[in-house]
Amino acid sequence: MCERKLEICFSPALFVPGDCLNSIVVIIDVLRASSSICTAFANGATEIIPVEDIARAKEYKLKGYLVAAERDGFVLDFADFGNSPFNFTKEKVAGKTIVYSTTNGTGIINLAKSSKMTVIGSFLNFSSLSEWLINQENDVLLFCAGWKNRFNLEDTICAGAFAARLMATGLYSTICDSTVASMDLWSIAQNDLHGYIDKAAQRSRLRDKNLDDCLEFCLTMDITTKIPVIKNGVLVACN
Amino acid sequence: MCERKLEICFSPALFVPGDCLNSIVVIIDVLRASSSICTAFANGATEIIPVEDIARAKEYKLKGYLVAAERDGFVLDFADFGNSPFNFTKEKVAGKTIVYSTTNGTGIINLAKSSKMTVIGSFLNFSSLSEWLINQENDVLLFCAGWKNRFNLEDTICAGAFAARLMATGLYSTICDSTVASMDLWSIAQNDLHGYIDKAAQRSRLRDKNLDDCLEFCLTMDITTKIPVIKNGVLVACN
Repeated sequence: MCERKLEICFSPALFVPGDCLNSIVVIIDVLRASSSICTAFANGATEIIPVEDIARAKEYKLKGYLVAAERDGFVLDFADFGNSPFNFTKEKVAGKTIVYSTTNGTGIINLAKSSKMTVIGSFLNFSSLSEWLINQENDVLLFCAGWKNRFNLEDTICAGAFAARLMATGLYSTICDSTVASMDLWSIAQNDLHGYIDKAAQRSRLRDKNLDDCLEFCLTMDITTKIPVIKNGVLVACN
Repeated sequence: MCERKLEICFSPALFVPGDCLNSIVVIIDVLRASSSICTAFANGATEIIPVEDIARAKEYKLKGYLVAAERDGFVLDFADFGNSPFNFTKEKVAGKTIVYSTTNGTGIINLAKSSKMTVIGSFLNFSSLSEWLINQENDVLLFCAGWKNRFNLEDTICAGAFAARLMATGLYSTICDSTVASMDLWSIAQNDLHGYIDKAAQRSRLRDKNLDDCLEFCLTMDITTKIPVIKNGVLVACN
């Protein structure tokens, strides 16, 4: 048994595209892109078009699309709103296509395009996505967005939670030190997730910009069962 | 207070040379380059010339130098010996210049050349190097060699041990998530270091090649007080 491989990548700078050919890649950007994407689908968004550069996001805006775009936490002036999950309300997003561009989150979707499939993971869709992954019978690569190519705590802890859940089935094996480390960090963090994330650099960055109102929400397990998946370069809910 | 900055870098792929201009960089490659370098100086080596590519190491051999060279754990055919610290005996190295080329360890010495100073850290010189760093009154960047650009457990744990020691002085501050994570992993590992490193991928790689005889030695604290430092591209002991 244990035929499925489980790996974690801590940063886009550590990602080797050839390593994910047989894997489902789970993109994790807890603060805040993957939490916002899960929230958008929970609130009825139809599709999300991830766009890496600002000029293209602006073109979409001129064509009449709803555009969510931020850099370093701040909403871009032409955008309808930024990167807080609280922006993606039912009123704004239900039945809509959203164009989405963020500091870390959208670029790595392109990086992982050689994967078997790419999905979006967060604490918000934890149990539903875990069950879905277990049912897929594939290798899994948990890909942390990090912060400007650096390792970050919040994505690592979330990846560790997924890894612990998958490894507990006995269906996966790993020879990946990042996976071992993430599960150990999750074992420390899980009993006081908010206290633990208080140590994260991004937590301070958001607080400094008064953008930390969504923190508690982003660390909440299972507010949705939605699983965002990339199809032809666009995010849709696969359930 | 807390004017000194402490950071950890998990892999050469995550290293930003401009970030270390004001820092002492501590290169950590526990299995096995930094352990071997510390052992060589403990046993009286005069200097070690780190050489990245194999062709240059071979040139040195033809000029009559003592050459230690390996790739993926195996001794290169022209070399006098490979990368086990047990090779660097008093009989072989006392009073000698050694030319040294390894899979991970030597390349990153060049990467860190924009640092204020570059030293070699391992469990073997832990207390001596910690005290020396505290006396330097400089920022410190603990630079894990990793394995082929990937994160690894053994270097992270060792970096976490140094970080915990330095942070305990109250002289350093950190806004680096890698530092927080490494200290937490060290807090798990420290009571059973051998048991913990049993989970590391490199431990399996060495065992598969029958190269794990030096493992216990490499995880031993304080067998030497020597601090290897780079001067003009060559390693010498600064004490």
